[in-house]
Amino acid sequence: MTELKNDRYIRALLKQQVDKTPVWMMRQAGRYLPEYKATRAQAGDFMSLCRNADLACEVTLQPLRRFDLDAAILFSDILTVPDAMGLGLYFAEGEGPKFTRPISCKKDVDNLIMPDPEGELQYVMNAVRTIRRELKGEVPLIGFSGSPWTLATYMVEGGSSKAFTKIKKMAFADPKILHALLDKLADSVIDYLNAQIAAGAQSVMVFDTWGGVLSPRDYKDFSLQYMAKIVDGLLRTYDGKKIPVTLFTKNGGQWLESIADTGCDAIGLDWTIDMASAKARVGSRVALQGNMDPSMLYASPERIREEVATILQSFGKGTGHVFNLGHGIHLDVPPENAKVFIDAVHELSAPYHL
Amino acid sequence: MTELKNDRYIRALLKQQVDKTPVWMMRQAGRYLPEYKATRAQAGDFMSLCRNADLACEVTLQPLRRFDLDAAILFSDILTVPDAMGLGLYFAEGEGPKFTRPISCKKDVDNLIMPDPEGELQYVMNAVRTIRRELKGEVPLIGFSGSPWTLATYMVEGGSSKAFTKIKKMAFADPKILHALLDKLADSVIDYLNAQIAAGAQSVMVFDTWGGVLSPRDYKDFSLQYMAKIVDGLLRTYDGKKIPVTLFTKNGGQWLESIADTGCDAIGLDWTIDMASAKARVGSRVALQGNMDPSMLYASPERIREEVATILQSFGKGTGHVFNLGHGIHLDVPPENAKVFIDAVHELSAPYHL
Repeated sequence: MTELKNDRYIRALLKQQVDKTPVWMMRQAGRYLPEYKATRAQAGDFMSLCRNADLACEVTLQPLRRFDLDAAILFSDILTVPDAMGLGLYFAEGEGPKFTRPISCKKDVDNLIMPDPEGELQYVMNAVRTIRRELKGEVPLIGFSGSPWTLATYMVEGGSSKAFTKIKKMAFADPKILHALLDKLADSVIDYLNAQIAAGAQSVMVFDTWGGVLSPRDYKDFSLQYMAKIVDGLLRTYDGKKIPVTLFTKNGGQWLESIADTGCDAIGLDWTIDMASAKARVGSRVALQGNMDPSMLYASPERIREEVATILQSFGKGTGHVFNLGHGIHLDVPPENAKVFIDAVHELSAPYHL
Repeated sequence: MTELKNDRYIRALLKQQVDKTPVWMMRQAGRYLPEYKATRAQAGDFMSLCRNADLACEVTLQPLRRFDLDAAILFSDILTVPDAMGLGLYFAEGEGPKFTRPISCKKDVDNLIMPDPEGELQYVMNAVRTIRRELKGEVPLIGFSGSPWTLATYMVEGGSSKAFTKIKKMAFADPKILHALLDKLADSVIDYLNAQIAAGAQSVMVFDTWGGVLSPRDYKDFSLQYMAKIVDGLLRTYDGKKIPVTLFTKNGGQWLESIADTGCDAIGLDWTIDMASAKARVGSRVALQGNMDPSMLYASPERIREEVATILQSFGKGTGHVFNLGHGIHLDVPPENAKVFIDAVHELSAPYHL
């Protein structure tokens, strides 16, 4: 494989010196880009786009043609794993993801198949291989998965949720069933992410979108424990290169110390925590990714630059910061505002790396 | 007015000694109780129930007949104030609250009327007076309001929201308009809560349901600043009695120190923070209310008691704790589980007050 031309993202995650703070955006390939909408229309539905390696590669590369991004991220969905386990994923128009066969008892958990990353999930690995080849070493490729807890919320609720009634009933009334599910998911995610690494992902990220709806004790028990298992099971070097792993729990700002204890390389931060305080708490142990409110991209160019400057100052001198939004970019953001944001990070961060 | 027969709730908020930890539940008058549903059906729609002092009193008292609660809370809605300001509140079936005339520009803010608590909002004061009379001094009556930021989210979005797109656009692109709105709301809330106190509320609580969707800087600027103004403007003693004030920001666990700086008597906690760590951070300055996950009421009696014991132990010895759920009780909780919870708090807390 070719050497990376731009390795700022990997270096910052490993806390090695960089010339500028690297930046990428969660959901950078997505509906705010007209070219994404065109490719999506060509593919048909959302999962057909994920299953077509050439089109998944195309949408992955689209934001890199517009913006000076320091990383590409595999275009896929967090629910590919539960789908491959046999739950029947579908997208109801305007309602988000749904499963035809949600989990409600021990037998449902026992019946789950352990998906073969080069079998049921080979379409994802094909996308990784295609994207890695087409990137031609310009920037690193990030692989990803949902966290076991976050995947389990969809699998038990049968889709998106607000109050997480069913999974919390299971957590508090039948914790053994839920632990069996989470353990199977952790094993599947380890296989899935290691296969992505073997296929070409140069860093991986675990998205724990819903860990923040738990109490501190329940977070450790039902979410963090299984992310720690994943961190332990991952290939941390491949082909002679370190493979940094980032854990991101939305609304997890109160638990940074525990997240760092897993041995991950970096923690993703949403925007509800001050970067300086996060750095003071865990910055000696891990790199930090984040943390601008995605809604700031609705503001004027001046206001966006001001916010970037504030967050850079909050992190201060030195490496160990990957700039990002605190969550996915909103679908109605003007693409030119994303460019203002990305350029501002590079321009304004240089003095912090002298 | 008669002396309170049970003043545990007030004493705990003022950090005076108690025999047992007081307990009440957010939304304790509500749809999980069949008798509530019957009264609601009698009233017609939700706002008709709020506007009828006798029926609002009836539903306020219903949970006190079933459970050994240490406080009653006025039955009303947080959106009474924006409604009285002229926005036209209505409830679309299955969609939550909506406004016919949401706020989108400076002129909309200028046109808002400052509601007279004994005029447009007299129906609320009538409910307070009726409930206070019918309580006959058994337990204290809590008055409440939404926080300016939380009220503004509904007023600008036109109803409930997930991404808070419109109000964040306003916050980041036109902050002066939003500050003008928040300032008017703070003044209205001060009048509204002081009128509730004059009508008989013995403690007041400000619900900041949506402050947690902001960054730390934006939280201080757009939410906390206006709650601090309210704390400053409230009657803190009335009729010779102290009137404790509680601030509750959902997902505000990272900002407890700043919340305590407002000079409030107590902070409401959701379930994402450990009670011991909250006490260590701000327990010398304020009382703490919370913080069991409302979903724990789906569990077995044994598991509910175990969770109550854990939270009591986490707070430890001494006063300054009002037990509560970390958010409103879910509408599908069996009432008998609420009884297990309330009784467990009283039974298991006694040794901590010896």
